[in-house]
Amino acid sequence: MVKTIEWRDGKGVMLDQSRLPLEVRFIECTDCHMVADGIKKLWIKGAPAIGIAAAMGIALGAQDIKAESFDEFTKQIEPIIKMMLSTRPTAVNISWATGRIERLLLANKERPIDRLKELLIYEANKILEEDIEVNKAIGRWGSEFIKDGDTILTHCNAGSLATGGHGTATAPLLIATEQGKRIQVIAGETRPVLQGARLTSWELIQAGIPVTLITDSTAGALMKNEMIDLVIVGTDRTTKNGDVANKIGTYTIAVLCKEHNIPFYVAAPLSSIDFGMHSGDLIPIEERHPDEVTTIWGHRVVPEGVNVINLSFDVTPANYVASFFTEKGAFRPMDIKKLMRADIDIESLRLKGI
Amino acid sequence: MVKTIEWRDGKGVMLDQSRLPLEVRFIECTDCHMVADGIKKLWIKGAPAIGIAAAMGIALGAQDIKAESFDEFTKQIEPIIKMMLSTRPTAVNISWATGRIERLLLANKERPIDRLKELLIYEANKILEEDIEVNKAIGRWGSEFIKDGDTILTHCNAGSLATGGHGTATAPLLIATEQGKRIQVIAGETRPVLQGARLTSWELIQAGIPVTLITDSTAGALMKNEMIDLVIVGTDRTTKNGDVANKIGTYTIAVLCKEHNIPFYVAAPLSSIDFGMHSGDLIPIEERHPDEVTTIWGHRVVPEGVNVINLSFDVTPANYVASFFTEKGAFRPMDIKKLMRADIDIESLRLKGI
Repeated sequence: MVKTIEWRDGKGVMLDQSRLPLEVRFIECTDCHMVADGIKKLWIKGAPAIGIAAAMGIALGAQDIKAESFDEFTKQIEPIIKMMLSTRPTAVNISWATGRIERLLLANKERPIDRLKELLIYEANKILEEDIEVNKAIGRWGSEFIKDGDTILTHCNAGSLATGGHGTATAPLLIATEQGKRIQVIAGETRPVLQGARLTSWELIQAGIPVTLITDSTAGALMKNEMIDLVIVGTDRTTKNGDVANKIGTYTIAVLCKEHNIPFYVAAPLSSIDFGMHSGDLIPIEERHPDEVTTIWGHRVVPEGVNVINLSFDVTPANYVASFFTEKGAFRPMDIKKLMRADIDIESLRLKGI
Repeated sequence: MVKTIEWRDGKGVMLDQSRLPLEVRFIECTDCHMVADGIKKLWIKGAPAIGIAAAMGIALGAQDIKAESFDEFTKQIEPIIKMMLSTRPTAVNISWATGRIERLLLANKERPIDRLKELLIYEANKILEEDIEVNKAIGRWGSEFIKDGDTILTHCNAGSLATGGHGTATAPLLIATEQGKRIQVIAGETRPVLQGARLTSWELIQAGIPVTLITDSTAGALMKNEMIDLVIVGTDRTTKNGDVANKIGTYTIAVLCKEHNIPFYVAAPLSSIDFGMHSGDLIPIEERHPDEVTTIWGHRVVPEGVNVINLSFDVTPANYVASFFTEKGAFRPMDIKKLMRADIDIESLRLKGI
């Protein structure tokens, strides 16, 4: 398993994803500015991973603070928190992590400054460990649906590189492999940004799992030839009714699964489920820059005058999903909304593996 | 309409497709070696187009022959024919064109040499004109299924660049436009070789048809959002039962069409229908070099150690096809096999447009 970020010898160590897969470079961040730089320059990506990085950046910054009182300490830590928030202003996980740190400080305002500094390191590591635990739990529940000898298709990158641990869609693959099941993975290259080709294939090779790369439009032919047993993808956001927003192309794979009676699974940490949004039609679909499609490695591929539609993700309706893998268990789409109810016995909703 | 090849002022003029869409260069071939070079170097591509080119190459070569007798003439033309056959040894259209020329010569062996030379030019132009007529007829029958305001998805390149005239899948688009219907086209980029991005979008822009480029995996999201009214693709080979071999990704589009109740049409000149092959499972699927997927513009995208499956085409079963557009009319898949029977009234099988 690749460690995309960790705390080691008083430093925040992050893998520079921007150079993958051609170069594997770890950056040892010795101060908060290096961490902020890494988030800004996309050396580290993925919602959970950048939340962890921000927490580590604040912990690093705190160590250099010279303060005698709590007020002095918070006055100096505030610009560091602001710097982290400004790296990726729309990243929910960064503001979630900073909020958690601010609450921690307030709850410990009576303690000596040195103790606060220790607490911040402890909290950053705790955020990382919690993420690792969530990944592992998703992996354990999901692995029950993988048999020895299975071939699993995945799309885009919902792997270790985006999280602190086993990733989300990749976690069941890693756990199944740890359990001794011999599996292989088909990775869709994921145009236009090629996360499948560059990242997923790389991290599965690191984990010793055989991986085969295809162009995205090859999935149908492989399913028709009975070369795929199941599909596991991640999700950017899943709504209360079980509709799944994920990387463009996910919906097409779901339709192909329906046509070929292949189960389509979604690995979804509870943090990715938006219980406040009723259904997927309400999710605004972001359009990304045409250059991602028209230009490859600085070479323009297409003629002037052509329009481009470059959707960043699509929405797969709940009825295409066989099961969600969360850290609390595997659930039917119709049961997702029940997970927020206090009166529900979660165990009774859990799906059994095959 | 782009003229990918034509005979002009005693020369064979071909468009150098290898530089498209960044550079539009026409090459004036003054002798048969230039034509052979052009076929070999993929300046000209597409089954009908290279058949026409080979015929023009032979006609050019014949003009330089100094011979007093038919035997002397054929002795000198034979190496020219062999040279054309050796440019792309598996290209059916080249051997079809050379066979036709050899029969023509044999049938006219009593004529003077100068007349034979003229006949070869005439025959090359006839092959081109017949192809243009086939394209136009496909376009006329197909255009009946296109309404004013329609948005049509196509895949890969089955356009003018591959034929002498309007192309196959593009012919209905061009004819519909000539008829005054305002249409727009969505072109799938067609990984790995990007024929949709490089060629189809370019030639539709030349024809003044608005074209929007998408990554192949975006088709599903657009269909779900009701942004596509119909699909027209070409075919490399269609079997007697109506199964369609075409560029990888075609089958996925057909499945998406079924799911969204969108008609899926195949433009198929009768020359592409293999009446000797019963069904699509019998077609051997060529695998192409992994480099097409792993390397883009000389840049390796993927890590060492990853396998690649790079299928050149897939097979779409007949039941996904709403109608075939041929030069004889539009037909249901189940009627394709009847087109070879002498006792059938073809008109009675023709489908009416919408």
